[in-house]
Amino acid sequence: MSAGPKQVLILGGGFAGVYTARRLEKLLRPEEACITLINRENYWVYQPMLPEVISGSIGLTNVVSPIRRLCPRTNLIMREVEVINLQKQIVTISPGFRPRELQLKYDHLVIALGSVTDFHGMPGMVENAMPFRTLADAMVLRNHLIHVLEEADVEENPELRRQLLTFVVGGGGFSGVEVMAELNDFVRSVKKNYLRLCNEPHRCVIVQAGDRILPEMSETLAIFAQRILRKRGVEIILNDRVKSATSEKAILQSDNEIPCKTLISTVPSALPPVIQKLDCPNERGKLLVNTRLELKNYEGKVWALGDCACVKTVAGTQVPPTAQHAIREAAIAAINIAAAVRSGECAEFGFEGRGTLGSLGHGTAIAQICGVKLSGFLAWCLWRCVYLMKMPGLNRKVRIVADWLLHLLFPPELAQTKVAFESGIRKQHFEPGDIIFEQGDLGDNVYVIEEGECEVLHEQKNEQKLLATLNRGECFGEMALLSNRTRSATIRARNATNVLIIPKADFDKLRRSVPAFGEVFGELVKRRSPEGAPHSFLETAGCCGGHPIPTPVAESELGPPAGFAPTELS
Amino acid sequence: MSAGPKQVLILGGGFAGVYTARRLEKLLRPEEACITLINRENYWVYQPMLPEVISGSIGLTNVVSPIRRLCPRTNLIMREVEVINLQKQIVTISPGFRPRELQLKYDHLVIALGSVTDFHGMPGMVENAMPFRTLADAMVLRNHLIHVLEEADVEENPELRRQLLTFVVGGGGFSGVEVMAELNDFVRSVKKNYLRLCNEPHRCVIVQAGDRILPEMSETLAIFAQRILRKRGVEIILNDRVKSATSEKAILQSDNEIPCKTLISTVPSALPPVIQKLDCPNERGKLLVNTRLELKNYEGKVWALGDCACVKTVAGTQVPPTAQHAIREAAIAAINIAAAVRSGECAEFGFEGRGTLGSLGHGTAIAQICGVKLSGFLAWCLWRCVYLMKMPGLNRKVRIVADWLLHLLFPPELAQTKVAFESGIRKQHFEPGDIIFEQGDLGDNVYVIEEGECEVLHEQKNEQKLLATLNRGECFGEMALLSNRTRSATIRARNATNVLIIPKADFDKLRRSVPAFGEVFGELVKRRSPEGAPHSFLETAGCCGGHPIPTPVAESELGPPAGFAPTELS
Repeated sequence: MSAGPKQVLILGGGFAGVYTARRLEKLLRPEEACITLINRENYWVYQPMLPEVISGSIGLTNVVSPIRRLCPRTNLIMREVEVINLQKQIVTISPGFRPRELQLKYDHLVIALGSVTDFHGMPGMVENAMPFRTLADAMVLRNHLIHVLEEADVEENPELRRQLLTFVVGGGGFSGVEVMAELNDFVRSVKKNYLRLCNEPHRCVIVQAGDRILPEMSETLAIFAQRILRKRGVEIILNDRVKSATSEKAILQSDNEIPCKTLISTVPSALPPVIQKLDCPNERGKLLVNTRLELKNYEGKVWALGDCACVKTVAGTQVPPTAQHAIREAAIAAINIAAAVRSGECAEFGFEGRGTLGSLGHGTAIAQICGVKLSGFLAWCLWRCVYLMKMPGLNRKVRIVADWLLHLLFPPELAQTKVAFESGIRKQHFEPGDIIFEQGDLGDNVYVIEEGECEVLHEQKNEQKLLATLNRGECFGEMALLSNRTRSATIRARNATNVLIIPKADFDKLRRSVPAFGEVFGELVKRRSPEGAPHSFLETAGCCGGHPIPTPVAESELGPPAGFAPTELS
Repeated sequence: MSAGPKQVLILGGGFAGVYTARRLEKLLRPEEACITLINRENYWVYQPMLPEVISGSIGLTNVVSPIRRLCPRTNLIMREVEVINLQKQIVTISPGFRPRELQLKYDHLVIALGSVTDFHGMPGMVENAMPFRTLADAMVLRNHLIHVLEEADVEENPELRRQLLTFVVGGGGFSGVEVMAELNDFVRSVKKNYLRLCNEPHRCVIVQAGDRILPEMSETLAIFAQRILRKRGVEIILNDRVKSATSEKAILQSDNEIPCKTLISTVPSALPPVIQKLDCPNERGKLLVNTRLELKNYEGKVWALGDCACVKTVAGTQVPPTAQHAIREAAIAAINIAAAVRSGECAEFGFEGRGTLGSLGHGTAIAQICGVKLSGFLAWCLWRCVYLMKMPGLNRKVRIVADWLLHLLFPPELAQTKVAFESGIRKQHFEPGDIIFEQGDLGDNVYVIEEGECEVLHEQKNEQKLLATLNRGECFGEMALLSNRTRSATIRARNATNVLIIPKADFDKLRRSVPAFGEVFGELVKRRSPEGAPHSFLETAGCCGGHPIPTPVAESELGPPAGFAPTELS
């Protein structure tokens, strides 16, 4: 028949992709097929246990499993998928150390790239809302929580302390509820180690669009879950949703605002851009497949499964995007690929789901299995057992049990495992009236207005004066970087404003190396500097930084933390 | 006597700082002293076990301990120290979420800020050599090793594969040897999981300036260690040192070059900048203190200890920068601070060291304790026991033992725990003759020459032609970003060259938001684009990108990995 093994290419290393590879390794001999899997990471994430990383009840690397060990016969390529060419049967992947693209030709293709977070039409969410999908997301969130607690411990201002201790989750589905439950448990238990926070309350808020949380579950269980969460101090806001965000607050559809430094969003998802570009029939934003999971017009060549596919069972039920379904889809896809490789019999997808399980933290869970409803500690034990059993490999099982035992004995981990400190050129969103920076602040960034208008305000003798307004394309804040370090004016957004933030380090590098870049700002400073008339500012307002009046540099704020020195300073 | 508790401020959370705080909590009552510790991280790193993070024989967070739990009565402030004003007795620390500085007044100050890596006068080291001091360093190295293995597994070119599998450590002291031993063990054991690497050799090189490794130990043990390491496949280059580096190689003093993608440097250290700025007597780059560990001219007020201090025992011995000495220094400092607070008796530093211990990996170690020399498995058991016992807290001890047991049973972790993907505006160093990018490469960065000269080379019909040379301040590579994606010329460094690299994402943001920035590059492209005479390039060479000749865009390279598709493409 064919010369040499067939090339089977699997895109994506989630439940769907990895289980397809595992099954194919069993169904096809090496001389029949060469299996290659492309994934951005070299590990597979065990999503159901991901929230446990927050509280550290499972160690960071125990919630994931190296794909090379799960699928020992599969070629793993740790790159990103850039282009899928269904006509030519070629997939292009991103370059590695060498800046060259790699193209792979396939005989059979499995698309299992999952979904991505999509904050389209929600201003400020990309910059300020944290997703919760990957191990990296979980680590970032955990480090952020510790950072916020550390800062709250030092903060003198009670309002800011309250803001630092407010945690908002957008989305009251399984994912949102489990993240909030773990987060709440974590903050509660580590707060004891912070001398000034032990008696400080913290605020946890779930915002859910429907009229109850957990739409995946029956109403009785959802109501039970709501009661449990509220008892543990979690606020639940129903029939509302997070519509936008700034670095200081979450803004709801109802126009309510929640001042917070931590906003987690588990809600909106879309097809990955590389799939969006395909010219294929979609249904509700997902790739349309038949009950054999084949992509229309590419039967026998291309399969799509997991979160990126719109799968229906033979009975016509819409399949939800859960792990148990993805695993069954993978089995069907593998059988059908094996059939295509050596012309066997095909299988159709008919799995209707076994039930749902969700943890509410603190030894409580809810379960709905084969029609039976369970809640409380018993459900929690069941939850742990089921997911432990489903975790492939003895290695992980033993490690997770060890972690759970240690977690019973000792308080949760508190060390921040931060690698890179946030920096780089980035965007930020401000709502009307928001302060971008305040007179007297340290100047560590230069700002460029991408959209909106800003006001330059100067305060002297308790009187605030509007000096100018700045428009799109104008920049500000360079003065504090080029001369003195503190801001000599306040900048306030007049309407919804998006800015580009250039940190001092990047600004300095660019200024020194790209002469034209430096010149722009050098001239600005000259124009805006206070030589000549003290009000020269308004005359040269074309582009401004709000530093016209030669006030003495503000003394840096003297605010030692509560427990510290009541001594008078200078 | 005094009104209210005295303010004791400790700068630095290493062995010296944390042990001073712990001892002070015992010596002084809360009403006598309020202890504050400032550290960049909220954890204390157990340095002796840090190398074990590489192979994962200890979990990431088990090699550190939260300072809040070690010193429950101490106020921890997780910030950086910016200015120490010894005259006014004020320490300024960096801002947190709010861009305001915090100033702290002290009655007694402990400076224990350790040392920093200093690559001054070693071109390319900052950009390419990885330090190994903090937990973040260990995580970065571990993730880098996995990345390199993943890429080597895909790489077709045997020369590049060899380069990816070469690991160089600069410095053959304890730290360098332990890192290399762990690295070697890790690579050896996980290579089995890479289908194309199992039979591929890897290369480990230690470069040491002296005529033997481990100058801290007796010659017999050092020779033993050298034999063991060589038996395990580690090359040891003596009487040489790494003098510079590029992203492709390490360059030694002897002008030997080692092509590699992994260069770890444990060598040069200097005082942290904040201490360098102090007007204090130094000795060999360290703060000079008396045997009571007091800073000269600030007796009874300021103590300096740990790696940043030049400590001598009462017998006059120079104290080495090790953990056992730092702990004893901390005890002395704490006694003397307590004495200053309530006028008691002072203590002097007289500890002469107990011995040294070092792991060589794979169940072998060397030890030299109270004159007795030990090596091999017995020394290794001793090494583990001693360091386990020295780790404070039952929690960590139990967790570490659990990790060790699991490490015996199961293969090492292979999951990359990468959070942020490297990006941002950065610098890079090239040696004469180095290729910066090659014709046909994908264009993902714009380059600006900060120092040196570059040649623009164009290849057509196997003939290479020099089109132009570029000098300081000129930029190149923008064409591939603005129009087509592949480079249409090769850029080669003519002499030692430093460039600023602006990644596509940052370049695009700046170009859109800062009009002047966009204009510079827009004009460049217009000038350099192939309209008009095909040789217009040389005429407008003032500033150039090497894209003058209208060649068709090079086809992206088709290099499927070894196991993949022997099929012909397009």
